[in-house]
Amino acid sequence: MPPIEIGQYLLVYNAFSFTFATMAAATIFLWFGRSQVGPAYKTALTISGLVTAIAAYHYLRIFDSWETAYEVRNGVISVTGLAFNDAYRYVDWLLTVPLLLIELILVMRLSQEETVSKSLKLGCAAALMIALGYPGEIANDNVTRAIWGTLSTIPFLYIVWELFKGLGASIERQPESVKKLIKTARLVTFASWGFYPIVYMVPFINLGGSTVETSLQIGYTIADIIAKVGVGILIYNIAVRKSAVEYGDLKPAGASAH
Amino acid sequence: MPPIEIGQYLLVYNAFSFTFATMAAATIFLWFGRSQVGPAYKTALTISGLVTAIAAYHYLRIFDSWETAYEVRNGVISVTGLAFNDAYRYVDWLLTVPLLLIELILVMRLSQEETVSKSLKLGCAAALMIALGYPGEIANDNVTRAIWGTLSTIPFLYIVWELFKGLGASIERQPESVKKLIKTARLVTFASWGFYPIVYMVPFINLGGSTVETSLQIGYTIADIIAKVGVGILIYNIAVRKSAVEYGDLKPAGASAH
Repeated sequence: MPPIEIGQYLLVYNAFSFTFATMAAATIFLWFGRSQVGPAYKTALTISGLVTAIAAYHYLRIFDSWETAYEVRNGVISVTGLAFNDAYRYVDWLLTVPLLLIELILVMRLSQEETVSKSLKLGCAAALMIALGYPGEIANDNVTRAIWGTLSTIPFLYIVWELFKGLGASIERQPESVKKLIKTARLVTFASWGFYPIVYMVPFINLGGSTVETSLQIGYTIADIIAKVGVGILIYNIAVRKSAVEYGDLKPAGASAH
Repeated sequence: MPPIEIGQYLLVYNAFSFTFATMAAATIFLWFGRSQVGPAYKTALTISGLVTAIAAYHYLRIFDSWETAYEVRNGVISVTGLAFNDAYRYVDWLLTVPLLLIELILVMRLSQEETVSKSLKLGCAAALMIALGYPGEIANDNVTRAIWGTLSTIPFLYIVWELFKGLGASIERQPESVKKLIKTARLVTFASWGFYPIVYMVPFINLGGSTVETSLQIGYTIADIIAKVGVGILIYNIAVRKSAVEYGDLKPAGASAH
């Protein structure tokens, strides 16, 4: 690891701890929500909670790894020589990014056939996108980084096309009360993912090693919170509203409609 | 442990962490799924989740053991002299492989008598297969490895015979909507198990020690994910579809069919 300012070290340290707490809290919220939605929407909430649970695990690991890479003693920071394992991010994304697309498909409640086929296509494209980005992330030169980054953009563009074109007609068939929310979830997914390539390109700017490292870590962390917790809460709201339309309000007899 | 390249060490390290997260996530998915299937299929999902839970525990252990066997400092990898306990794999299989066959039998919903008899026969054969493979795995010479490997093949062939011949008639009696899925589960079980002997034979090829070690670990890890998570998700789908056929859609009274 490159030497780092103490303020930068602590910023990343606290951001990792914050993100672990946020992901764990979101997980519990989403899983408790399962009992508040109709049967058709339980799996969407199970998966949304799995995404944040898997991320919580990886933020715990990445926090520990960051902590062992540096030592702060008497107000002075030094490098321990132990490696910071940044690969946890890619390991996390390899699992969570396909699941994020699947939760979006599940909450739409398409036909069984369409659900399976879209989940497979989008899930595989997402896994491919992550796998192609990784060799660039660990590369030491910017040319290699650019090549893998570009290759990774191909499945990314396919996913964007599927989300906006392929799923477009299905979204138009959704109930009025959730159409806007589903479009928001799609947009947040797209926008937060658009953030990752920007962070990926940070090393191209000519900054000092520790500023690059800090920007990368904080950037990816913000993107992760929006993509996983933000989208998860949208999915929860969509599931609750669709359950109300399709199953009634799931309220005890005698309770008022609203 | 033999010396190893840093890239190989990290590949195995991250693969173990990935597999822990995958197994743990699959466990929660399968156990949450219990509330979405009919009473006759709850045990199949309990067992499927136990298989991935037991594997999650062992991958946590094997990850720790791998981490303590090597040290990376200032970008240089060295052997610590502490042993890497590969036996966790066999301990895991001794428990999970019989359970994997039992989950396949349970989801078929045979008569009580047939369920007990097939579970006992297949469970014992699976345990015997693992127990006979172990002395070969820890052997230093390839002859001993080959002898135990061959002995282990006998119960393996019996299991294959039971799966394809013994269970064949029962599979033909399954509802149309799941017949193909059950055959797929059987095929994935067989194919993923067929992968283990191939990995087992890796030391017969004349490669360097660290390449053999890395190939063994990655090979077994992929096989474990397919055999446990892949088959678990198939069992979940079979259970959901059979519940829909046999119990109706498990929807509250008055809800529309779609």
